[in-house]
Amino acid sequence: MNFYPQSLTELINALARLPGVGKKSALRFAYHLLHCSDGEVKRLLGAITNVRTKIGHCQDCFCLSETPICSICSDQRRDHRMVCVVESSQNMFALEGSGTFKGLYHVLGGLISPLDGVGPEHLRVAELLRRVKGQNITEVILALSSNVEGEATTTYLKSQLAETQVTLTRIASGIPVGGELEYADEITLARSLAGRQKL
Amino acid sequence: MNFYPQSLTELINALARLPGVGKKSALRFAYHLLHCSDGEVKRLLGAITNVRTKIGHCQDCFCLSETPICSICSDQRRDHRMVCVVESSQNMFALEGSGTFKGLYHVLGGLISPLDGVGPEHLRVAELLRRVKGQNITEVILALSSNVEGEATTTYLKSQLAETQVTLTRIASGIPVGGELEYADEITLARSLAGRQKL
Repeated sequence: MNFYPQSLTELINALARLPGVGKKSALRFAYHLLHCSDGEVKRLLGAITNVRTKIGHCQDCFCLSETPICSICSDQRRDHRMVCVVESSQNMFALEGSGTFKGLYHVLGGLISPLDGVGPEHLRVAELLRRVKGQNITEVILALSSNVEGEATTTYLKSQLAETQVTLTRIASGIPVGGELEYADEITLARSLAGRQKL
Repeated sequence: MNFYPQSLTELINALARLPGVGKKSALRFAYHLLHCSDGEVKRLLGAITNVRTKIGHCQDCFCLSETPICSICSDQRRDHRMVCVVESSQNMFALEGSGTFKGLYHVLGGLISPLDGVGPEHLRVAELLRRVKGQNITEVILALSSNVEGEATTTYLKSQLAETQVTLTRIASGIPVGGELEYADEITLARSLAGRQKL
């Protein structure tokens, strides 16, 4: 790569740090950024700076937000008695994209994972308990990944919320819509059977 | 997408303008840029700004360069009697990556394409003729894409260089290394036969 001008090499290296981007893609991005309009570059630079300076966390649900209380928590048309617990803002946005949940969220900020040194004290569990006890919440829905960390976190939250009067549920495990039965693994099939619903 | 904070939406839209990047990849990039270190963001912003301000064209061969004369043109160890004509700096870097050519380059800045309104007057043909006549150049190698525009440009350059004493060659057409004969098209096979070489 020593035949590229130095600043181009530096840009390629910087772009190659984006997730899933290799040298070839980084080169394409670099050429695009070199040849596109001043306006487009300005918009991109401004957008990166804005995201870094403007976005913080909602004080209530801890999702990414530009305001102290996010647009979901401050929306009075939503059901403030239901709280859906998620790992990250990213997962919250994914659920929100389905357009069916009209309650509030609570972003844990991770999952319990002793191997990675993440214990309950690193997550926003105390904040969840405070919300459940302090606000008029009737149902807590756990929408966590269906892996070992998700299971550990589910078990821990169940034990923590046992003393409260709240209804605790978790989202369904089963065959993805459009998925074929013969390719599903045994545990997924067992879960989908256990969670069968009346038609 | 109206559930994302506004600055995040703007960053996703700006990133989705990069070539080959859709909304999903743009979202991944945006999360990365939101959560990575200040140093990494600073490096990326600096690299984009640098590329836009520092890189111009070499006055001799018109490739991308930070200096008035590029590192290749100013390298006295290279053969200044051979000039390889390419469409773009990108193609020049690709050839340079092969590590076998030790002459100089000439970047045309495009190929003749009447459909796109690109005529010879839009390319750096006059500059090429001036170099061939003014400098001690003995061979001009055409390394252009093997498509209609490449052929048209080759024919035009041949007619323009006919009056000079320079040897005009073009890079070989044939079966790519690792390619299988049965999958090659008829024209490529005909070219590879015509261009056969003594072992």
